[in-house]
Order: sequence, then structure tokens, then C-alpha cells
Amino acid sequence: MSRELLIEEMKERVFKANLALPKLGLVKLTWGNVSEINRELGVIVIKPSGVSYDTMEMSQMVVTDLKGDLLEEKSMKPSSDLATHVVLYREFSDINAVVHTHSTNAVMWAQAGCDLKAYGTTHADTFYGSVPCTRELTKEEVESAYEENTGNVIVETFHKRGIKPSEIPGVLVSGHGPFTWGATPDKAVENSLILDEVSLMAKETEKINQRVVDIPNFLLDKHYLRKHGKSAYYGQ
Amino acid sequence: MSRELLIEEMKERVFKANLALPKLGLVKLTWGNVSEINRELGVIVIKPSGVSYDTMEMSQMVVTDLKGDLLEEKSMKPSSDLATHVVLYREFSDINAVVHTHSTNAVMWAQAGCDLKAYGTTHADTFYGSVPCTRELTKEEVESAYEENTGNVIVETFHKRGIKPSEIPGVLVSGHGPFTWGATPDKAVENSLILDEVSLMAKETEKINQRVVDIPNFLLDKHYLRKHGKSAYYGQ
Amino acid sequence: MSRELLIEEMKERVFKANLALPKLGLVKLTWGNVSEINRELGVIVIKPSGVSYDTMEMSQMVVTDLKGDLLEEKSMKPSSDLATHVVLYREFSDINAVVHTHSTNAVMWAQAGCDLKAYGTTHADTFYGSVPCTRELTKEEVESAYEENTGNVIVETFHKRGIKPSEIPGVLVSGHGPFTWGATPDKAVENSLILDEVSLMAKETEKINQRVVDIPNFLLDKHYLRKHGKSAYYGQ
Amino acid sequence: MSRELLIEEMKERVFKANLALPKLGLVKLTWGNVSEINRELGVIVIKPSGVSYDTMEMSQMVVTDLKGDLLEEKSMKPSSDLATHVVLYREFSDINAVVHTHSTNAVMWAQAGCDLKAYGTTHADTFYGSVPCTRELTKEEVESAYEENTGNVIVETFHKRGIKPSEIPGVLVSGHGPFTWGATPDKAVENSLILDEVSLMAKETEKINQRVVDIPNFLLDKHYLRKHGKSAYYGQ
Repeated sequence: MSRELLIEEMKERVFKANLALPKLGLVKLTWGNVSEINRELGVIVIKPSGVSYDTMEMSQMVVTDLKGDLLEEKSMKPSSDLATHVVLYREFSDINAVVHTHSTNAVMWAQAGCDLKAYGTTHADTFYGSVPCTRELTKEEVESAYEENTGNVIVETFHKRGIKPSEIPGVLVSGHGPFTWGATPDKAVENSLILDEVSLMAKETEKINQRVVDIPNFLLDKHYLRKHGKSAYYGQ
Repeated sequence: MSRELLIEEMKERVFKANLALPKLGLVKLTWGNVSEINRELGVIVIKPSGVSYDTMEMSQMVVTDLKGDLLEEKSMKPSSDLATHVVLYREFSDINAVVHTHSTNAVMWAQAGCDLKAYGTTHADTFYGSVPCTRELTKEEVESAYEENTGNVIVETFHKRGIKPSEIPGVLVSGHGPFTWGATPDKAVENSLILDEVSLMAKETEKINQRVVDIPNFLLDKHYLRKHGKSAYYGQ
Repeated sequence: MSRELLIEEMKERVFKANLALPKLGLVKLTWGNVSEINRELGVIVIKPSGVSYDTMEMSQMVVTDLKGDLLEEKSMKPSSDLATHVVLYREFSDINAVVHTHSTNAVMWAQAGCDLKAYGTTHADTFYGSVPCTRELTKEEVESAYEENTGNVIVETFHKRGIKPSEIPGVLVSGHGPFTWGATPDKAVENSLILDEVSLMAKETEKINQRVVDIPNFLLDKHYLRKHGKSAYYGQ
Repeated sequence: MSRELLIEEMKERVFKANLALPKLGLVKLTWGNVSEINRELGVIVIKPSGVSYDTMEMSQMVVTDLKGDLLEEKSMKPSSDLATHVVLYREFSDINAVVHTHSTNAVMWAQAGCDLKAYGTTHADTFYGSVPCTRELTKEEVESAYEENTGNVIVETFHKRGIKPSEIPGVLVSGHGPFTWGATPDKAVENSLILDEVSLMAKETEKINQRVVDIPNFLLDKHYLRKHGKSAYYGQ
């Protein structure tokens, strides 16, 4: 397939995935963005900056190289969060799409600065353990290359804790909100939906039973591994 | 009526009941399944595995025998939760349909590992006492025949506590989520809806009044018995 | 206007008000009912018993006398809660319509057995003080003429506390749920909507500030009286 | 453009912004109002009093002078909250539109009598610090010129605390609810939406982590200033 056609298809997937965000209730106003990478082509496609979901068109999707520099003439400005996406793509080599939202329930956990623990199998079916919350950015990190440093603190969190991005396809940025990723834009959006839903369930679980603890590792293993990897067999 | 026609009708009921789950807000993505049994025919019909509700067709409903073995050529794979349904049908002889969901509020209680107490008549109209939460499965139970053991721990919970499945048509599986049942797929779905709604009501009731206790037995009796059994007379 | 026409119009108002309940999110399944009284005609019109809102027709509205006895041949069974409505109409002479629901947030307060305090002007615009929660019914009251005694305990609550039904057009029945009333079926439904909304606001207000107290009487007076009675002037 | 045409355009903007309130879930019944000012023309346009959103027409928008006195014959009565809007326009010279709602989550904070702290960047993108909650009005203030005094206590809050209305485009009136403002009716409505959403997020953030504190000033600065003022560059 030609490079042009492949990019056209990326634009379509990124466009549709962006539109899915408000439809799924994950985004109000313009509070979200989806991108996709094709490393062979050296191309990232991302939502344009500040465009309303109501009027956004497929042709407005922004095409950049792997550093986030514009590749097309007459391009719109890319989402300001592009620099965060670029870092995630560079450091997490097995992800092809990134989603950022301010979805209500995931933001509550990010604002609280707390890891989202695996309290049940709904969580374990997608996230193989706690979804980590990053440390706060320092004054220096915020004041210089803020969006890039947001990516850096995510990467630091995964590296320091030894978490594989393929096994925990999402993160809470402290005081900010969630990022998720996946093999495709659709899958990354789905992970945003799941992250928000388990965020809701977890906070209420803690209120019903203040002494609740994570599910045991063998249950986490069972649920995660029956859906992911080579021994996967599960479908509801 | 011919066996073929009866099975066709089961497929239609199971199909429609499955579609009702996302419509009623009880299921996101593919997080649910409904089945029906006809013991005389020796047949169970259940949702196919991992199929999206948007594209699911009636003809895709999966037909198995009472052990869960496929009966039709070119059959799709049944929902992985079939093994749980099979145990419930075998042990609870007066139920004809089973529903499993990850509905938000019922999951919160399941994750909390707490019985759902009868705090009001909304609960008592359908559930004749607390909806029990099972014990956690052991490592061995999870690692061998997990879905079957999920059925077993439900049955154990009802037997040990002397609960009749016809009087409490639902359960919370610890760390997982709700199962409900009923005389028909529609009725079992209705019980899932009610279980989720009373789960929501109960958790907030406990926060408004931290010393709240179950409604008295005479009120439980009145509400349950005016709607169920031979002296039933009630309709709103 | 002829008696027939007047009753026909009552049926239409009661029918439409009943349909408004699920549309406003106040009722799931068949968990609600609306009635209207015309004391001059000696007629009450109420929802039929157990009929689904999806299929309910205007002609199915049930016509009774002021004691709740059927007045039309081929009538459907009236809502089982009719006996409660009859008591309220008999004792509260200035109300013309009654609504019963199991709306989520009002039920939470009823189950908690707590009065709903006036924490703000949203409450005070409609309810001139706390919405009372009745005492629990006794075993004897539940086992004999339960629905009638539900009306009696509401009346007792208003009489004992010296509350005017016109000033507090609603009540929480302990362990059960809300009843509201008004000059018309529409107004009574509106009061159900408001009661549910202020129930939601109040429970979260108490969580944000655990030492919150009722608004002062002069603010209650201002808001209630600028919308009600002879000095009313307010409209948003 | 002629004065008539300019006023006609104000009516259209005010009408549409009023209709946006129920559509965005910020208003039930008639619990809200939007106005716009044109200081050069000496004109305020506001929602008519007590008119249902379902039947409201553009021609019903009410035109007054800067003191709130009617300018058009056959005018409907203006929203009773006009007097509050008039004070805000007089004292906050850089705002062109005002919105009042009883949106669920913002009212919870107003009833709790608590400032809404900046717990995250969703908040900081629009509100440059805590959204203040006013003191309670005194008996005298409520009993005389209540609506005007509601405006006065808002202004007092901003003046005493040294807050710029352009930097914190909203307020919580104690025991009552939110007012927001902006450069246009649309922008003021958007600020109402954001205020309600961050109200929801903040109350749950406090429950997940009871020791949560405001985000640091450098993060507040970064988020607010990248979207507002002369160095703004941000779009999602």
C-alpha cells in the first residue's frame, strides 16, 4: 500500500477514535486527544489543537514525524500534548496509539495522587496490577518543556517500578489525569474507558469496605493471562 | 412444537436479553452474558464469546447440552462463563436463565467482599434478605477449572447459609461481580437491573446513616410475599 | 363540562404524569404511580397495577370513588398503593395529586431513616423546611392494612410535627421511599423531581462538610415565600 | 451595525446560551439564567422569568438598561436574578455575560460553604486558584434587596480576597449555588460546565485522599497561563 494511503488510513482511525471520546462520555469540551504512530513510515497522526469535536473533520488530523515536527503543508497545529505522546512512543516501543483524557473518575485518582489498586477482575482483565500514579513534576520540569516532561515522568514511573507498558496500558499523571495506550487507537480508547470505569468502582469499593485489599496475585494472573498472551482463551 | 422451533425461540429470548444489558446500562463493551436452559430438551443457549453487542446476531447464539458441550455444527465459541452457568443450572433446579454482568454498583459490593443488606422495600420486593457475597476462591480453585469453581462457590454459599435460589435470585462473587437468575432471560436481566440499583442505594444509605440496620423481618416478609408466592397481590 | 369529560381529562393528566416518571429518570421498571382526585366529582384516577410504562394506554387509567372502590366496569386493578393515596387525599384536603416513586436519591434518605434537611435554596424554593422521614411502621401496622397504614404514618408525621402538607409537599417513608403531592399531577411529579435532586445534593453536601447545618430561617423564608403565597414574585 | 441589529444578535446569543444549560445537564426545570451586557449600547439582555426551556422563544428575551429597567414595550418580566447580574456587570468591568445555575455538583459545594480548591490541572486550565465561596448573607441583607445583595456579597468576596474576576470566572454563593461569567454568553456557559465538573472531581478527590492539598503554584501558573493571556499557546 502506498505511503499516502497508509497515512490516510491512520487519519481515519485517529479521527474516529477522537470522536469516540465524547461519545463514550470520556471527554467534555476539547479535553482529550488520540494519536497513532507508524514507526516504519516515520509518522505520527494526532488530533489538531483546540478543535471542537462537533466540527472536526478527518482532513484536519495532523501528520508529524517521530519527533513531532509537521510533515504536511497547510497543516493545523497539533494538540499541545503531542510532546507527551512523542516521548511515550519513543520509550514504549510496543505501543502504536496513545490517548489522553480528563475523564471524570480517572482524574479523581490522579488528583488524589494515588495508585489505582486492582480490587477486582474487571481491573485485572485489562491491567495486570495497580495503575501507577506518577510523582508530581518539579518546578523546573513544569517550567521547562512541560509536556515533554509529562512524558518523561510517565516513563520514569514505569522504569523505576519495573512495569511493562504492554501489561499496564495506562497511567495516572499526578494532579493531572490519565494517559492510556494500545495496539490501535480503538484499543487505546477502550483502555481509557476501562480505566475510568475501574476508577469509579475502586473509589466506591474503598468506601463500602475501608479495609479492602488488592485481589490476590493468583486471581490477577488468572484474569489477566486468560485474556492476554499466548494462553489467552477468554471471551464473555 | 418441534425441538428446532423451541431452540429457535430460546435463541431469540437469549439474544434479546443479551441486547438489553447494554441498553439498560448494565454492561460496557462485552462485559456480560445471558443464557437459558430447557432441561426437557437437554439444551442451554448462551451468548457467543467476545462478540460485540453492536454486531451480534440472533443466529450466533450458541447451543450446548446440559454439560456445556456444543450441539451445532459451525457453532461459535460460547461465552467463557458458560461453565459457571452450567453449575448453577445443575444445582439450582428451579432456575431457567442466568445473567452475568460487571454492572458498576454491584461490582463495587463484590469487590468490597460484603453482603448487600436489605435496607429497604426496593430490595425486599425482589430479594428476600441479604444478597450474599461468596468467600474468595482459593489459589487451587482459581488455577484449576476457574469458571466451574466460580459456580461451585456460589452454590456452596447458598447451601451453607440455607438460602433458596428462588428467594434470593442473585449473588455477588467476591472480587468479581454479580450473577442473577430467574424463570426467564427477561426476568434474570430484570433481577440484574434491580441488584445494581439496590447496590447503589445501599452504599449511599450507609453513608447517610452509618448506624443503619436491615429492615425488620416483618417488613421484609410483607414486601417479598405480597409480590411472590401464592399470596401475591401487589403491583405498583 | 360533563362528568365524563372531566374524568376523561383526569385520565389524560394522570396518564401523562405517569409517563413523565421514567422519562425524568425517577422510576425504573414499574416502580411508581401517580393519581389525581376530584373531590366534587367524588373521583380518584390512578395508574393500573403492574402495567409497564412502555405499553400503558390512557384508557387503562383506573377510576375509583374517594374510598378507592372501582367505578368503571372492565376496569383494570388499580395500583396497590391506592390505599396510601386515599388516606393522603382524605387527610390533606388541599392536595389534588399524589406521586409515589422509588427514585434513587430520595430512597437513600428514606432507607437511612433521616429527615432531609434544607441545606440550600434549591431545597427552600419548594420545601419550607426539612422533608420529614416517618417513623418505622410497627409489626402490627405492616401485617394489617399495610398500604393504608403507610398513609396513616405519613399523616401522623405531619400532624405531630405541625407541618402543613401545602408547605412541605413530600415525605420520606422510613425504609421505603418518597411520596410527593401537589395541586396537579404535573406539579406533584415536579415535586418528586425536586425531592430527588435535593436528596442527591444534601447527601454530598454532608460529605464535603460534615459540620454543615440547615440554612437560617430568614433565608428559608425568603426563598420559600418569594415563590409561594400571596407575596410571590420570583421566576428564574 | 444598527442598535436594533446589535440587540437582535444579543437576544440570539442569550437565547442559545440559555438553551445550552439544560442540554448540558446544568439546569433542571427553569433553574438557571444567562444574560449579556453591551456597555456601549447601555443594554442588558436576559432570560424572561419562569419560562420553560421547552417553549421559550428568542423574541421573549428581555432587554433592560444597565440598571435593569425594561427598555421594550410588551416585554416579559426579566429573570428575578437580574438584580444580581446588574451588580456583577457594574463592578466587574471586564465581563460581558453572566450565568446562574443550580448545577448539581457546584451547589453541593455552595451548600457546604466551602471554597473549591484547585486539585488538578482541569481546574487550573480555567480557574486561576480556588473558586471562592461567599460568606452567608445576613438577615438584613436577605430581607432587603436580596438579589442585589447576592451580587454585593460576590463582589465583596472578590475585593476582600484580591481576586480578579477575569482570572477566577466563577463563584459559589453560600447556601445557594454558582454564578459564572465570561467574555460571551457561550464562554460563561462553558465556565459553568467546567465549574460543575471540577466540583464533582474535587469532592471525590478529597474522599480518595483525605490529606490531598492544592496543586503547587508553579503548576497552577503553567496551566492557567498556557491557556490565558499573552503567552497562551495551549490547545488539546
